[in-house]
Amino acid sequence: MFPFALAAGPGFTAEQIAAFFLALALLLGLAKLLGEAAQQSGLPSVLGELVSGLLLGPTILGTLAPQVAAWLFPSFGPGALGLEVIFTLSAALLLLAAGLEVPLSTVWRQGRSMLLVSAAGIAIPFACGTIAAGLAPGFFGLPSDAPLAPFVLFCGIAFSITALPVIAKILVDLNLGKSDLGAVVISGAMLNDLVGWIGFAVVLALAAEGAAGASGIGTSLGLTAAFLVVMLGLGRPAFHRLLPYVQAHSSWPGGVLVLVIVIGLLCAAFTEWVGIHSIFGAFIAGVVMGDSGHLRQRTQETIHHFIINIFGPLFFASIGLRIHFVESFSWPLVLTVVAIALFGKLGGCWIGARLAGWPSRESLAIGFGMAAQGTMGILLGQMARQAGLIGEPLFVAIIVMALATSLISGPAMQRVLRLQPQRSFADFLSERLFVPALAARTVRDAIRELAERAAPAAGLRADEIDRAVWEREQIVHTGLENQLAVPHARLDGLGKPLVVLARSPNGVDFDAPDGSPARIIALLLTPNDDPGAQIELLDLFARSLQSPATRERVLHARTFMEVRAALKIQPEAGHEGQQR
Amino acid sequence: MFPFALAAGPGFTAEQIAAFFLALALLLGLAKLLGEAAQQSGLPSVLGELVSGLLLGPTILGTLAPQVAAWLFPSFGPGALGLEVIFTLSAALLLLAAGLEVPLSTVWRQGRSMLLVSAAGIAIPFACGTIAAGLAPGFFGLPSDAPLAPFVLFCGIAFSITALPVIAKILVDLNLGKSDLGAVVISGAMLNDLVGWIGFAVVLALAAEGAAGASGIGTSLGLTAAFLVVMLGLGRPAFHRLLPYVQAHSSWPGGVLVLVIVIGLLCAAFTEWVGIHSIFGAFIAGVVMGDSGHLRQRTQETIHHFIINIFGPLFFASIGLRIHFVESFSWPLVLTVVAIALFGKLGGCWIGARLAGWPSRESLAIGFGMAAQGTMGILLGQMARQAGLIGEPLFVAIIVMALATSLISGPAMQRVLRLQPQRSFADFLSERLFVPALAARTVRDAIRELAERAAPAAGLRADEIDRAVWEREQIVHTGLENQLAVPHARLDGLGKPLVVLARSPNGVDFDAPDGSPARIIALLLTPNDDPGAQIELLDLFARSLQSPATRERVLHARTFMEVRAALKIQPEAGHEGQQR
Repeated sequence: MFPFALAAGPGFTAEQIAAFFLALALLLGLAKLLGEAAQQSGLPSVLGELVSGLLLGPTILGTLAPQVAAWLFPSFGPGALGLEVIFTLSAALLLLAAGLEVPLSTVWRQGRSMLLVSAAGIAIPFACGTIAAGLAPGFFGLPSDAPLAPFVLFCGIAFSITALPVIAKILVDLNLGKSDLGAVVISGAMLNDLVGWIGFAVVLALAAEGAAGASGIGTSLGLTAAFLVVMLGLGRPAFHRLLPYVQAHSSWPGGVLVLVIVIGLLCAAFTEWVGIHSIFGAFIAGVVMGDSGHLRQRTQETIHHFIINIFGPLFFASIGLRIHFVESFSWPLVLTVVAIALFGKLGGCWIGARLAGWPSRESLAIGFGMAAQGTMGILLGQMARQAGLIGEPLFVAIIVMALATSLISGPAMQRVLRLQPQRSFADFLSERLFVPALAARTVRDAIRELAERAAPAAGLRADEIDRAVWEREQIVHTGLENQLAVPHARLDGLGKPLVVLARSPNGVDFDAPDGSPARIIALLLTPNDDPGAQIELLDLFARSLQSPATRERVLHARTFMEVRAALKIQPEAGHEGQQR
Repeated sequence: MFPFALAAGPGFTAEQIAAFFLALALLLGLAKLLGEAAQQSGLPSVLGELVSGLLLGPTILGTLAPQVAAWLFPSFGPGALGLEVIFTLSAALLLLAAGLEVPLSTVWRQGRSMLLVSAAGIAIPFACGTIAAGLAPGFFGLPSDAPLAPFVLFCGIAFSITALPVIAKILVDLNLGKSDLGAVVISGAMLNDLVGWIGFAVVLALAAEGAAGASGIGTSLGLTAAFLVVMLGLGRPAFHRLLPYVQAHSSWPGGVLVLVIVIGLLCAAFTEWVGIHSIFGAFIAGVVMGDSGHLRQRTQETIHHFIINIFGPLFFASIGLRIHFVESFSWPLVLTVVAIALFGKLGGCWIGARLAGWPSRESLAIGFGMAAQGTMGILLGQMARQAGLIGEPLFVAIIVMALATSLISGPAMQRVLRLQPQRSFADFLSERLFVPALAARTVRDAIRELAERAAPAAGLRADEIDRAVWEREQIVHTGLENQLAVPHARLDGLGKPLVVLARSPNGVDFDAPDGSPARIIALLLTPNDDPGAQIELLDLFARSLQSPATRERVLHARTFMEVRAALKIQPEAGHEGQQR
């Protein structure tokens, strides 16, 4: 933009650097924004991240303003190389983080159930995929210059992979993380991923042989096998011994953080050099290191936060940058791929679980749990496309399939197992139902004031609400310890639970066990036909305000936003507990 | 290395990607290793990081194995661009993190002292620098194609800048963080940095004008001024309001993490586009955002850990990659630069502090505090060199000066103020003075067993030690609560404090106030002529074992390394406390 350009290194102009920073900022910002929006609508965040790439890529921005798109996201020249390096690094770090979350040593403890579920959950979709692709390679879009065998094998793997991080999150959301069913799903998915990625490494080696016509495949596979044996056999105990040494002799957590990333990069370099993809090495490095009990929770969290929040969105957004989604979208292909993936996985896991002695309903839930392909499916598809194994239409179908299975997985498990989703108290709050400073000084006045605030949102008359709450209050007062009070009532004609949150500067005497006047008062109104809702709300309220720090923040917050933030973000101790 | 190359993007071969990952791993791993080694020898970690770059750059590896060096760190082609992008991003993120640590709003509270110290601390070294460079531009190595005015101005700025992160660390190490003197030094350094970087932006704009002969400087400076006004005037309150909103409506801490980085990248893009450097925008973005009280400690820590530990070492190591240190080293220039920087800063700050009414000794300490140039000086020099403002010999001299001033700063302040450095209990432990399982079951036997272990290291006879400790024990028993005991004695002829740490599987009854038998026993021997050492050790021991989690880890550790790690890394609560 200016008539001069400071040389900022070999080959970059100041304008290219400015464009690079701007491109990263837009990509990351939009990906995170849409990712969060997706998540808050109950969709997987990766959906929003992919859409942000489509908006900034050829699908939207490239069509509306091709020159801006080419300036920001050039497809050749130094600028293109700069972005490519960031995306390549992002993919490797993402798989490193995914690997770190694999609880390798717990896999073997699940024994028979896990092995059966995993074996059938791989074998059946793999068979479906290879047979379908083998019978109709044209329909699945075999590229004209691509060899058939790797293509068919890849299709089998694409249908049999699972998305461990997505599954782990679904299980935690459904409160199944610690259950037997959860353990079978997690460990089965883990084994699935390991086998899937190893299979993909074989496919890449096969494809490379086909491309070069050389006999490199033996070397390539031999080195991959040696890598696996060395990493799992020697790398695991070696890292487990090295870690306390590094923790004792280096600054914390910097030393361990760097150690983990350096080992990840070294393994990525090795597998890339061998001829399979760098992400495979990073993944195995993560699996090996994440297994060590010496890796502290806080170190893991730092790695996790930074990689999942920064490099994850960047990578998934970058996928959208390079595809023309609308042009490559084919309904028949998409529906076929979704159907094969879903029914193959469901059927396989159901059979495996039944054989292991699980009841039919739980077996189905296990199948839905294992069906989520999420990030892993997309990543695998992207790698196959970059290697020239598959064409863009199949890649688009794989993206849709990965998203659709992830979307179905949680709700389907919930319905099959008849579970209630977990909610947070902050989810029930809204600005117009927040009273920053209650005028009332007595319980009677306080309830009247709160009922008036609740009436418009409840669609009921204020005196109706007031009467019901006051009746309940007369049975026994609702003051809790620590200056809290929870007047409440169940009402006919109320559509859904409703909370009015109020602060009282002077305190209102709700006759609490510790004699303290209430300063944070929540009016809890729940539908008469939903008896569980009241218990849930009472529990959520007490739990979300149990820390003195949170109560202080709520009392001193200047805006509703700050109140909500305080209730949502628990203080350190509480947060730690939540994560474990 | 293989006869095929999978296209992994536009323009990269698999071999280039493998080399890229390997280069990053080597650079990061070696930088962290040498950085830690430097830190543990009492040197600044940036010294080790720079040396790692020299080892892998033309100075060593390029001389010994030029082909390997060219393969790993190519200076042109896609590989070079890939590394350059990472280093450019690292520099911007590093300055963002440095900016986040600037406590902007506390600056103004220091009032007169701070203003006087800062003004004199900038003016006098700036004057010395410009006069020296103006009188002898050839001696300072003015490049033949570089304009004189920016060169002279740059020299002035290079002598007047300070290194806020280094200073903050030195003050914390000396326990001066919360003192008045510390506050003056920190806020003075902050103002110094702000003025210095703005000045550098002006110099870059001037240089760019000279290079292009255009009248762009007005626009460039106008836009820079507008950027500063908008960011400090509108950006600060806007971010302060936006933050609780983002915290309330996004996943935590991901939302805030991304917000901070996106704003940093946007500002970097803007200042790069304006014609000053991207790092200036990132720094100002950091200053503006770090000032908001809403930015949680944990979010700050995550950003800090990742950037300081990963991108910091990468950036400083990359500097060494591009210079031929030995060739460009000139003793006269180095000594002149060090002398001007040190005496200019010392003199200026001493005058400022005296004028503000500080005693002479404290004024000198303030001067030494402000003299540390550390990372900032090196960064500034690197940017000036990339912009072609200065030659390699002056850059090498600036590096040496920055390191020398950082090295002198802490010890000089300590000596001037007659302070004792802070130590950790783990620093006193060694493997040969660790008893994993004490055989003794009585206090008498335990002391004898510990004395025997201590004797060779103490250079004294075991019965001498035993007698002294037993005499002390007979006055009053040394059992503490929570199964701890600290038998101790002061001895003649002991060179330095000595600790024997022992675990007792059965427990030894040291007559603790809570009646519990001691399971962790530390024998503390201190020289007779150092009465403070015993009190310090007793205090360190009690504090380092006050958390139940730490005691459990020490009791169950399988190796000495694990014991040391447990004592060094305090559990979450303790760690949080330390950081604040």
